[in-house]
Amino acid sequence: MDYANLPPAEIRKLIREKQITGPTAGHALGYAQANLAILKKEHAFDFLLFAQRNPKACPILDVIEPGEVAPKGIAKDADIRTDIPKYRVYKKGVFVEEVTDLYDYWSDDFVCFLIGCSFSFENALLNNEIDVRHISEGCNVPMYKTNIATTPAGLFEGPTVVSMRPIPEADVVRAVQVTSRFPSVHGAPLHIGNPETIGIQDLSKPDFGDAVTIKEGEVPVFWACGVTPQAIAMHVKPDLMITHAPGHMFVTDIRDEHLGIL
Amino acid sequence: MDYANLPPAEIRKLIREKQITGPTAGHALGYAQANLAILKKEHAFDFLLFAQRNPKACPILDVIEPGEVAPKGIAKDADIRTDIPKYRVYKKGVFVEEVTDLYDYWSDDFVCFLIGCSFSFENALLNNEIDVRHISEGCNVPMYKTNIATTPAGLFEGPTVVSMRPIPEADVVRAVQVTSRFPSVHGAPLHIGNPETIGIQDLSKPDFGDAVTIKEGEVPVFWACGVTPQAIAMHVKPDLMITHAPGHMFVTDIRDEHLGIL
Repeated sequence: MDYANLPPAEIRKLIREKQITGPTAGHALGYAQANLAILKKEHAFDFLLFAQRNPKACPILDVIEPGEVAPKGIAKDADIRTDIPKYRVYKKGVFVEEVTDLYDYWSDDFVCFLIGCSFSFENALLNNEIDVRHISEGCNVPMYKTNIATTPAGLFEGPTVVSMRPIPEADVVRAVQVTSRFPSVHGAPLHIGNPETIGIQDLSKPDFGDAVTIKEGEVPVFWACGVTPQAIAMHVKPDLMITHAPGHMFVTDIRDEHLGIL
Repeated sequence: MDYANLPPAEIRKLIREKQITGPTAGHALGYAQANLAILKKEHAFDFLLFAQRNPKACPILDVIEPGEVAPKGIAKDADIRTDIPKYRVYKKGVFVEEVTDLYDYWSDDFVCFLIGCSFSFENALLNNEIDVRHISEGCNVPMYKTNIATTPAGLFEGPTVVSMRPIPEADVVRAVQVTSRFPSVHGAPLHIGNPETIGIQDLSKPDFGDAVTIKEGEVPVFWACGVTPQAIAMHVKPDLMITHAPGHMFVTDIRDEHLGIL
């Protein structure tokens, strides 16, 4: 199957029918994908406020209110209980199991947060002929905990996690311009250059994901990462929290380009 | 006193001491000012979600959590109970009184929303030598109810209110560019040209504010207006809601330019 050229609704249908069970990178190419974080209503205001205060790390694309199952703003006919290939369940901050649908866990007091994902701005970099190293090396993006504190909200607080992409010196300005256009998928970089400034000791040892090659004449460029809100929500050890499994995203009906603010 | 050149903290101090009691336009020039909406905690999640879904009409600059009085993200040492020259109190959607501080009403379950105000992008237009008609005519900006529905959240729903500024044809593109830079103070226009398309029958009869002259060769340009969230919150008829009095804004420590995303 040519998943890259299927429309998002078809991809979601195949996921719902459990015919797609793997990572969604490259599926319905040109359409935005989203991270998922599900919390019970009691934590929803604080988490939404946390997102509002930390929009680079936690850009909200849509929120599903209690009792509903579709993120109507980004995919009207979807069902969040079935339309992601793999979910992760955490109880009191501890990973419990991976599941392929949420029927056994679903509750009418769930609030589901769909959070922008870097795939959209990576497509924009590629369209500008800027190499995205972890894609060309076929591995996961390297991610690092930093000394950049998030702005707390209620119980939610902790360090910002960043992703890193090595960019040739000559393309750094363009990389800033291209990603600045997309604030709802992490936007402009948080930091350019010296990793130690933001508390990263060794680029070859990422906290999450895989190390990538940094070539002569390339500058490490750091963007706020969607792992931040999950890591921070986990830190609060809520009774129950559900997320997508890494790389197994929600495919939206929103074209990447529609997220461009200019 | 030269209020235009006083720093924001000085302006707030004079307001707190009730030495400034009038409108704040032009005070601490170059610094962003904010609209205020105070609701009780029970409505806070829905209102924050409404804002997240309608960022052009309701761009949140900061939120004060229950039990606190300072919008720490935009003015660390401020006290929201005293630092606005005039407040309006509404009970069940009905205007009750104007007050100059909130000591008689303050409650520890209040959530205060500070919402971006068009003063910042008007300064940007003026800096680009684009006339802002209601400023040059010394009146209030004309505002209109439209047929553009907001995206509901919980109880909050209703029509978008827009403000209108007549722009010379030759400057329309620049006006879009300049205001697109400032998404947190309403951002790019919602509509350019024919008022009837968005349900406005007669530009000479605004629903709020004052009519302004539209000269030959000028195009009416419409931006989402900060009156929208207040009008919609009012529609819900909450037991208690407090806002700033029109034109009597909260002066923040954030420079207009720092709100520019590019």
